[in-house]
Amino acid sequence: MIFSEISLIEVLDLLGTFAFAISGIRLASGKNIDWFGAYVIGLVTATGGGTIRDLLLDVKPFWMLDATYLIITGVALFAAILFKEKLLRLGNTLFIFDTVGLGLFTTVGIVKSFDAGLPFWVCILMGALTGTAGGVIRDVLINEVPLLFRKDIYALACIAGGFVFFLCYQFNLLIPVVEVLAALTVIVIRVVAVKFHIQLPILNLDHTDAKREE
Amino acid sequence: MIFSEISLIEVLDLLGTFAFAISGIRLASGKNIDWFGAYVIGLVTATGGGTIRDLLLDVKPFWMLDATYLIITGVALFAAILFKEKLLRLGNTLFIFDTVGLGLFTTVGIVKSFDAGLPFWVCILMGALTGTAGGVIRDVLINEVPLLFRKDIYALACIAGGFVFFLCYQFNLLIPVVEVLAALTVIVIRVVAVKFHIQLPILNLDHTDAKREE
Amino acid sequence: MIFSEISLIEVLDLLGTFAFAISGIRLASGKNIDWFGAYVIGLVTATGGGTIRDLLLDVKPFWMLDATYLIITGVALFAAILFKEKLLRLGNTLFIFDTVGLGLFTTVGIVKSFDAGLPFWVCILMGALTGTAGGVIRDVLINEVPLLFRKDIYALACIAGGFVFFLCYQFNLLIPVVEVLAALTVIVIRVVAVKFHIQLPILNLDHTDAKREE
Repeated sequence: MIFSEISLIEVLDLLGTFAFAISGIRLASGKNIDWFGAYVIGLVTATGGGTIRDLLLDVKPFWMLDATYLIITGVALFAAILFKEKLLRLGNTLFIFDTVGLGLFTTVGIVKSFDAGLPFWVCILMGALTGTAGGVIRDVLINEVPLLFRKDIYALACIAGGFVFFLCYQFNLLIPVVEVLAALTVIVIRVVAVKFHIQLPILNLDHTDAKREE
Repeated sequence: MIFSEISLIEVLDLLGTFAFAISGIRLASGKNIDWFGAYVIGLVTATGGGTIRDLLLDVKPFWMLDATYLIITGVALFAAILFKEKLLRLGNTLFIFDTVGLGLFTTVGIVKSFDAGLPFWVCILMGALTGTAGGVIRDVLINEVPLLFRKDIYALACIAGGFVFFLCYQFNLLIPVVEVLAALTVIVIRVVAVKFHIQLPILNLDHTDAKREE
Repeated sequence: MIFSEISLIEVLDLLGTFAFAISGIRLASGKNIDWFGAYVIGLVTATGGGTIRDLLLDVKPFWMLDATYLIITGVALFAAILFKEKLLRLGNTLFIFDTVGLGLFTTVGIVKSFDAGLPFWVCILMGALTGTAGGVIRDVLINEVPLLFRKDIYALACIAGGFVFFLCYQFNLLIPVVEVLAALTVIVIRVVAVKFHIQLPILNLDHTDAKREE
């Protein structure tokens, strides 16, 4: 990571990584998981989405180029062990970091896929994947049905951000402006959805237990 | 997708994708999963096997080239929400679609790997992987031990299809004929196994609970 | 696999693969999983770590070049079915194989990443990933929180082996010597940790059930 004029994005990237790592470490807690396991789950939460994106794009995984993500996750684990409940009481602050991270990661995913020459609907999907897949792997590792599938508007915010990105791009706005608008869309939708408890309907096709007869 | 003379394969591909997506959506139902989650699980069931195959082959994942798979999954979700139990009562029809899809996906996996110059035993494995890995990821996401490991002859049908493929190829049959025979093998074995409840033995090494002491 | 002067490494590789496959098959037992499922879980345990490593390195997965790994896993399943409890009573022998395999797989992962020109900290990570990711996938497939995150010093032994590798490399030791020292470090730390029940602390941030409110 080079200190340069784009350092605001870097700061947001670090905060987002920290918040994602903390979300992994928090959910690992109380599951009989040791410090090392918590570190791995934090790391996977923070970097899993971008890693799958990079594998699909056939480029070198981003965290191989920059040890920052490993270090930030270490700081997150250290903070979690040191401050325990105090850290958890920062719920709102962490939510803001997490949401900013989601907006940023989604936008990075869109831009990286767009630069790779993929069609717009693949880019939108890759943006959502970048933002959400880490949390899905986290939940698989701690042996839960992914929160993403059960709670709040999360991935849909990423997808809306993707559509805003390509809509603004059509209007020939400057790329940095397009990026900011896409990220803001993700953030605003996520905040509004959580604040007003907006959720999608649960899918329940029947009440018999014939469901696993495939 | 271009409309051309090979449209029968395309129709089968769509039906197979639809059936695989429905199987994901059905199993997601009743697990406190929302519409979006059901869509993702349906999509992963339908495209997961081919995606892992393409990652292993180091080629661009097939669904990035053609939005059909995303759309079909959307149609499957829409149909599931609209028709609910009625859809589930189509059990036999869905089973046929699913089985045809399995035969087709397996054959596509074999051919794609064969064209990539891989040895025959890798191609057979990749065929089985293409047909079955989506269902494994589906079951991991809904937090169950994969059905593939527990029930019916499923992957073995794919592997038998693979052997038939290379056997027929040795006899210099025309490639389209070889493909049809391989797919039919998968379909027939699967249908026979389900009809006559042919299953592999369950593995049970001991009755103590020393098993997780590794 | 070509018989040559490096056959000791090959023998260790086979023993390690066998032990890893057995660990997958053992844990599959008693979970209502059939022979085929046990084979797949054994195979994934033995080859999963190296496969993820090769995907991240963007090289052809190692098991595509050599059917040995498939065959060894078949032998392991056959041995498990044939000898049942007798096999499990070989606990100590299997532990030695498993530990030697861990040391070897870790070192192979480091060397392969190093040859790909990656920075040392990525190589250390890739070594640990090669040694441990198969077991993590195994536990995800049998629907358990990965043992790796809960028990004993395992991945940390791999990481220590990685540091020893690069430390020795700095001192210009011959590469084969560096490799042996790295593998021995992994093996010794693992054996000592298990013998003296050295474990990392469990992470437990709070005692409320607010943890999944994210």
